[in-house]
Amino acid sequence: METQNGLVIVHTGNGKGKTTAAIGLAIRAWGDGFRVLILQFIKGNLQYGEIKTIETLREVDGRIELRRLGKGFQRNLKDKTEHIKACREALQIAREALESNKYDMIILDEINYAVKFDLINLDDVKELLHHRPDNVHVVLTGREARQEIMDLADLVTEMKLIKHPYQKGIKAQKGIEF
Amino acid sequence: METQNGLVIVHTGNGKGKTTAAIGLAIRAWGDGFRVLILQFIKGNLQYGEIKTIETLREVDGRIELRRLGKGFQRNLKDKTEHIKACREALQIAREALESNKYDMIILDEINYAVKFDLINLDDVKELLHHRPDNVHVVLTGREARQEIMDLADLVTEMKLIKHPYQKGIKAQKGIEF
Repeated sequence: METQNGLVIVHTGNGKGKTTAAIGLAIRAWGDGFRVLILQFIKGNLQYGEIKTIETLREVDGRIELRRLGKGFQRNLKDKTEHIKACREALQIAREALESNKYDMIILDEINYAVKFDLINLDDVKELLHHRPDNVHVVLTGREARQEIMDLADLVTEMKLIKHPYQKGIKAQKGIEF
Repeated sequence: METQNGLVIVHTGNGKGKTTAAIGLAIRAWGDGFRVLILQFIKGNLQYGEIKTIETLREVDGRIELRRLGKGFQRNLKDKTEHIKACREALQIAREALESNKYDMIILDEINYAVKFDLINLDDVKELLHHRPDNVHVVLTGREARQEIMDLADLVTEMKLIKHPYQKGIKAQKGIEF
């Protein structure tokens, strides 16, 4: 890979497509020869279909890796201990991955949401971004991204819900992300 | 594939991620065993990296297909003849694909933009959606989707630009979509 300035990219908002577009970026990056790491902070949006596809691409040449560290966090949960532990572990892996020079793009899936629910500290994420090598792209997804994260980002997109099938009484379907 | 109700999904807005999230849906659908067709109405957002990845997946089992029909349309273009021709061809292929029972998901990339610039008629797109088999998911991307298209959709997401690297004077980079 040629060296280039790594971007900090944020996908936030209450709509669909935050994780999906991040996976789309990963797919594009892989096609461009990048080495990609996807770290899942909270279990949820990544579904069987894309996990399967990532595994298929990984079998081609190993340049894409998905680590599902997050647990099935619920917002009303009283005991957050295991989720805090999982998120801390994910953050530590992110730190090491950034320093390892083994990746050109690192996706921190649902990290914004983990910050929102105090599963990780905002300061730790800010520090991570401040100390990243400048040739690695970092993508942060999750609704309600904190302003201080967006201030550190180069590219911020809000995925905004305009219309949802639930409003029409359609149930969730295999292969579709809601 | 099990039969299911096909959804009409729209990705619109002035931000990044419309095509990228559609490709993410395609990737997920492929992983779920769907047969996917991606039709490009206007050349532009689809880049080398994702084309390469789609080709790689296609080599696995042929269940994903990308047809790049659109030309490099410019909004100030005086003679739209070749673009109108390309978009009409793409629409006809979409019609046939919908009727063929060969696909579970069809992505009409940049079709909203093609409607906006009168490269295809809104009525033709509406008719396409009205007459689609109800077990096929149809994804329409492109900024400024017409309200009548959104009225026909089940799921509409607006990708909204909050912050763009151009604002910081950073140039476009390989593997990143802007």
